[in-house]
Amino acid sequence: MTARVRVPASSSNLGAGFDCIGVAVDRWLTATALPAAGNTISIRRRGRLTAVSVAVDEDLLARGFRAAGGRGGMIDATSDIPVGCGLGSSAAAIVAGVLLADAALELNLSRQQVVEIAAAIEGHPDNVAPAVYGGAVLSVRTSSGVVSTPLSVAAGLELVLAVPPFPSDTKAARALLPKTLPHADAVLAASRAAALVQGLLSGDGALLGAALDDVLHVPFRRARIPGYDAVVAAAQDAGAFGATLSGAGSAIVAIAPRERAAPVGAAMIAAWRAAGVEAELIRSAHPVAGAAVHRIPQMTHPVSTELS
Amino acid sequence: MTARVRVPASSSNLGAGFDCIGVAVDRWLTATALPAAGNTISIRRRGRLTAVSVAVDEDLLARGFRAAGGRGGMIDATSDIPVGCGLGSSAAAIVAGVLLADAALELNLSRQQVVEIAAAIEGHPDNVAPAVYGGAVLSVRTSSGVVSTPLSVAAGLELVLAVPPFPSDTKAARALLPKTLPHADAVLAASRAAALVQGLLSGDGALLGAALDDVLHVPFRRARIPGYDAVVAAAQDAGAFGATLSGAGSAIVAIAPRERAAPVGAAMIAAWRAAGVEAELIRSAHPVAGAAVHRIPQMTHPVSTELS
Repeated sequence: MTARVRVPASSSNLGAGFDCIGVAVDRWLTATALPAAGNTISIRRRGRLTAVSVAVDEDLLARGFRAAGGRGGMIDATSDIPVGCGLGSSAAAIVAGVLLADAALELNLSRQQVVEIAAAIEGHPDNVAPAVYGGAVLSVRTSSGVVSTPLSVAAGLELVLAVPPFPSDTKAARALLPKTLPHADAVLAASRAAALVQGLLSGDGALLGAALDDVLHVPFRRARIPGYDAVVAAAQDAGAFGATLSGAGSAIVAIAPRERAAPVGAAMIAAWRAAGVEAELIRSAHPVAGAAVHRIPQMTHPVSTELS
Repeated sequence: MTARVRVPASSSNLGAGFDCIGVAVDRWLTATALPAAGNTISIRRRGRLTAVSVAVDEDLLARGFRAAGGRGGMIDATSDIPVGCGLGSSAAAIVAGVLLADAALELNLSRQQVVEIAAAIEGHPDNVAPAVYGGAVLSVRTSSGVVSTPLSVAAGLELVLAVPPFPSDTKAARALLPKTLPHADAVLAASRAAALVQGLLSGDGALLGAALDDVLHVPFRRARIPGYDAVVAAAQDAGAFGATLSGAGSAIVAIAPRERAAPVGAAMIAAWRAAGVEAELIRSAHPVAGAAVHRIPQMTHPVSTELS
């Protein structure tokens, strides 16, 4: 049986939601798998995936496929998600691999199981969860494991992303974080994470503005992104509630009322151009659906199925 | 004109909402003021207020009254809020003083103004805001000052508070906090503050359980409250989602589904009794109203007014 999956991009952190909140973004990785005998996986990479140069066995599509029990197969994948820029391209690839194995082997994994398998490879669930569930998702460690729960988002909010043509090394970005923080900053960070959840729910601009002004990671990372301060200021001046790194960058994401999304995007691109960077604009109205799987039995009529 | 105010108790922090989230509790401070010529304030203290021993000019009722522009007056106040146990007795007294001056002098302060005046005396808004607005309130520092915003709370949640007969010194409790925290703990704290907002909204027990397991202040304060661990464990064993210090203590607050509130309360009192502490039980179903003002013109028929 052939399976085809479609997995969205995602923007994690959103300022104060560091390592716990992510939102699906309207860019997609699409992949088809035809199981094959043996343990060999072959991958045909198209679209943005041509930027991926790792060996097939290290490809995140293959790692997700194998983590869910897949063995051999031919994977044909394409994507319009910028690679390595903080838009969840890794999470999308892992989730796609897991779902291809799930569909091909008829494992009937639950969404939560897909998130768990994929997050184990990714190391954290904040991109994986919105890639699977769609929309905005909060992932929290509890006494019974990581709980991923959908967050309500007020109508009329839009994500505006400006993506520079250079990637950000997530591992290097993580190494920039300090070992300790002043207690007062941790208190501020907690109040702003609360403000993010409440601001997304209510659309309150003051709460969203505070939430996007992160103290946990952006202060230590923004110097690596040339033009960061100018792009954030331009977004705010054009009517965004605020802007911050998407994931660990390099992309910058703004949250704006829908009617300001066009000028906000234009201002961000212009500010980056003034800094010598030709950035790509992505606008993403909420909500964006989560991953979807199609099984194609006998290569005849496609059958669409919801994830259980 | 005589004014009478009624201000609820409150429980702040609720674990991960340290210094930013508070909930009104169904205990009340009631006070009547009759303005008098001159600058002298007299206060008659009844009920739990007989535990207050400071000079009149240092009394928080008088400080609130004067901060809002009141000069002389006779204040008659009573309360069933335990004093100094983490139930917002100070905030209630300050808010009552501000509102008495507001009513007597017909200042027509907005709720936000009342919160600002009272929070300036209290030093933080997390008890003041729910005392004024009622319900659950998130107070966040933003670029345009502190924003206090109501939080939605799922039907069927109840606060269960066990109050020991000894107060907690908030200043001493604050001095116990470390100057720095591991970055990983700050990240965990932020995710749990997000979980608190989402857990209150949804009633999700796993989120509330994680949110009540605070890392910002409880680990440094709980040793000061004899029996703390046993009372928290008893609450959880009896069906609470979790339990934590109310404010800086000494009271312990649990969040429980309403149908488990009775056994949770009994278990908390029993656990404290086993530790040699005779605690008082307070159950508080959500939502509790905020402060209310009655103006009594000419000492005839009372006129009830909503805060603007």
